[in-house]
Amino acid sequence: MTKIDMNSDLGESFGRYSLGRDSEIIPLVSSVNIACGYHAGDPDVMAKTVQLAEKAGVGVGAHPGFPDLQGFGRRKMDMLPEEVKNMVTYQVGALLAFTTNKKLQHVKPHGALYNMAAKDHDLAVAICEGIKQVDPELPIYGLANSELISAAKEVGIPYAQEAFGDRNYNADGTLVSRSLPNAVIKDPKEVAQRVKLMIQNEEIIALDGSKIALKPDSICVHGDNKAALAIVEELRSTLTSAGIEIKPF
Amino acid sequence: MTKIDMNSDLGESFGRYSLGRDSEIIPLVSSVNIACGYHAGDPDVMAKTVQLAEKAGVGVGAHPGFPDLQGFGRRKMDMLPEEVKNMVTYQVGALLAFTTNKKLQHVKPHGALYNMAAKDHDLAVAICEGIKQVDPELPIYGLANSELISAAKEVGIPYAQEAFGDRNYNADGTLVSRSLPNAVIKDPKEVAQRVKLMIQNEEIIALDGSKIALKPDSICVHGDNKAALAIVEELRSTLTSAGIEIKPF
Amino acid sequence: MTKIDMNSDLGESFGRYSLGRDSEIIPLVSSVNIACGYHAGDPDVMAKTVQLAEKAGVGVGAHPGFPDLQGFGRRKMDMLPEEVKNMVTYQVGALLAFTTNKKLQHVKPHGALYNMAAKDHDLAVAICEGIKQVDPELPIYGLANSELISAAKEVGIPYAQEAFGDRNYNADGTLVSRSLPNAVIKDPKEVAQRVKLMIQNEEIIALDGSKIALKPDSICVHGDNKAALAIVEELRSTLTSAGIEIKPF
Amino acid sequence: MTKIDMNSDLGESFGRYSLGRDSEIIPLVSSVNIACGYHAGDPDVMAKTVQLAEKAGVGVGAHPGFPDLQGFGRRKMDMLPEEVKNMVTYQVGALLAFTTNKKLQHVKPHGALYNMAAKDHDLAVAICEGIKQVDPELPIYGLANSELISAAKEVGIPYAQEAFGDRNYNADGTLVSRSLPNAVIKDPKEVAQRVKLMIQNEEIIALDGSKIALKPDSICVHGDNKAALAIVEELRSTLTSAGIEIKPF
Repeated sequence: MTKIDMNSDLGESFGRYSLGRDSEIIPLVSSVNIACGYHAGDPDVMAKTVQLAEKAGVGVGAHPGFPDLQGFGRRKMDMLPEEVKNMVTYQVGALLAFTTNKKLQHVKPHGALYNMAAKDHDLAVAICEGIKQVDPELPIYGLANSELISAAKEVGIPYAQEAFGDRNYNADGTLVSRSLPNAVIKDPKEVAQRVKLMIQNEEIIALDGSKIALKPDSICVHGDNKAALAIVEELRSTLTSAGIEIKPF
Repeated sequence: MTKIDMNSDLGESFGRYSLGRDSEIIPLVSSVNIACGYHAGDPDVMAKTVQLAEKAGVGVGAHPGFPDLQGFGRRKMDMLPEEVKNMVTYQVGALLAFTTNKKLQHVKPHGALYNMAAKDHDLAVAICEGIKQVDPELPIYGLANSELISAAKEVGIPYAQEAFGDRNYNADGTLVSRSLPNAVIKDPKEVAQRVKLMIQNEEIIALDGSKIALKPDSICVHGDNKAALAIVEELRSTLTSAGIEIKPF
Repeated sequence: MTKIDMNSDLGESFGRYSLGRDSEIIPLVSSVNIACGYHAGDPDVMAKTVQLAEKAGVGVGAHPGFPDLQGFGRRKMDMLPEEVKNMVTYQVGALLAFTTNKKLQHVKPHGALYNMAAKDHDLAVAICEGIKQVDPELPIYGLANSELISAAKEVGIPYAQEAFGDRNYNADGTLVSRSLPNAVIKDPKEVAQRVKLMIQNEEIIALDGSKIALKPDSICVHGDNKAALAIVEELRSTLTSAGIEIKPF
Repeated sequence: MTKIDMNSDLGESFGRYSLGRDSEIIPLVSSVNIACGYHAGDPDVMAKTVQLAEKAGVGVGAHPGFPDLQGFGRRKMDMLPEEVKNMVTYQVGALLAFTTNKKLQHVKPHGALYNMAAKDHDLAVAICEGIKQVDPELPIYGLANSELISAAKEVGIPYAQEAFGDRNYNADGTLVSRSLPNAVIKDPKEVAQRVKLMIQNEEIIALDGSKIALKPDSICVHGDNKAALAIVEELRSTLTSAGIEIKPF
């Protein structure tokens, strides 16, 4: 039976600041990426979110980002590869410590770190080395076909190819920038169809009509507002009806 | 043969800011407490310091402190026990990730956190629970006979009783506050004699002349300036001459 | 005509984190206390909140707090008076820079800083000196009859005596601690009556029935949830009906 | 009589971390740029440094940088112009509050912020708008002939054209990148000659031999180590001998 992982970003609250619908999204996904205190999250939020995720039986992953709480890790920072490696080790180690069995399912870089590394080989290698320092068996989630995947192969850590159902793709397999009008797909049915076809055909249609070969291991979904939750629900039911099982990686 | 551990705080540099004589103090001690990025240290400093310590074969410990870089973790903060527990787990996990064998020798709370917990049972329990969350076999270094030691027993984690050679003691076993004139002993020979007698007699003479029963597992020494290094050297040679071996805990 | 100021804490959002109902509370109060980036707020939030407040014609005040975003400035910190003085100057200066006419109406310390200083003379003096460094004509809002008021007199800056309508008082004029069950009064009508009588009689009835002489210049109200807004509305209408004008200090 | 300003970065210590030779460099320069707590400095360091500078009678300037203490403001960050504007206002306002007469001589952006803005028009405009928000009469120090200067003209604030004696220039008037071997000139006599000729001839010879028209108002000098101090001393004596007076802008 065909299966796919569905992952979502969680644990993004901080101190008195509450963000995200963690308890609503957890039952709908199979894996979660938990913020590690740099771009979002704090030790209390991390402890609570790991507990919530473990109780629900979803795959627990670390979601390291740039040290930029005000910018939510979405602003590019020009750090040296060595600095990136160490900050990834730091954040992943911190989150790992909150798990019951001292085991994470995966690591997924966050925001600007993810986007930059998808195109920047040295940065991608630095992230993978940071993960390997924690555990050489710990997989990275990276944009399918991107530098993150080739870096994982080069460094020698496992990886999952990630795809986005609610984002349009350029012909080269990169995501259409959020600064462009047609970057995001908002119709739940369209998103669900795209993902279903992506999984069944192992390809996705780029904006210019060209086909990109793509074999996704995990689909990224958002759950921080009502509309996003509606998409996840539609996606879940469409995939299940098509005989595609939603399971942790 | 009698043996004792000698520990020192290390890895307290941050970014462009350099602090401490790490490379000079490491050959003189048997264990080091490495800052974890909250009161001092950053991921790059942590990576480098762990490497340095592992190469030298000294015991590597985490040195978690309050989230107060400006105050160097020396200012009291009124955090909830749950918050303290989680911030200890976070910092210890982060440092652990930099070790080669994913194993720490110990954890020693830093500065105000250490001093407050020595007298505050709930705070001491919270610290021990934060350590236990990372690894129930991971020992805490705490002020001999203090709440840190009774909390370790209560929570069920190993512990080392720590003593100070360069500090005067009150009759109740607490340290004379640094705000008082005779808090610190500066003469290397006097410090060395005090420690030798402390180990041989399993007691220390308080300021008022009374004797405090004390069986130290580890002696804390400072190495952040030339005078401090002179004390460590004197102490080392005095103990060795007395047939006391300096070894990791 | 009798008049009173009503003040509320604002500008407590941070980066992507949204907090408070600023646009709803502003039309109901006469003065606002804007967070300065230490316990809450960031430069963008400060710029926007000052603009909002100036446009509405309410009195603009700085709301400096401890450097503790995670704890929202509500955790006690043990800082030296000199450190407190300088951090107050820093935060007040930063907020002042966003005003159109380079003029603030007042400064009100936040959270733990306010509560500690109400009882701690040295801390209160340090806060007042920090304000005086910015502008010797700039008034402080302090708990009526507390150390904050005597410190303002001592240091020589103007002050406003602040009172709380939704909090019970101890016989010594301090607020009943939030950790006690009857600390907070939730019924809008009761709060409104208390404030009206407080202003008309220049006294308040403490929990034990004793009377505390109190001549409030400003009433603190909260607007961070629906129930709080209901209290402010009731208070506003009760005071207006009683011929008490709500005006900036 | 020809005159020139000499400026240096100061107040870069933080908490327990000490950096720079502030008391040695102050008597040698005519203006200082004081860090504002984002990339370096804290309120206590700012208070002390402003006092020191005012006492010495040198021109006091704010030195705002990116919010990146670990990277010392030297790592590029991709912030929105509006965010840059507000963070400049915040930092300049904070420093201004520590001055005796509530008057700054100038503002000089720090590190990556300065270098990026020298080439990025929108960023340069944002910085100038952030300064104008504090005081429309407050001058910016910017790289001579760079976007910082044209932005100052556009926004309508005063400016000083800054030049570097110890750095080689490209033909387009930008500095040779520090990543290249011949970026920095280390010989005190050579630096002093270059600056003297730059002032007298109003031009500088680029690395490729071409001449760049340049009318410097201020020369940037470093004083964070002994070699740097030697350059400043040589420069001072060479300029004075040539009848060029060293005065604040």
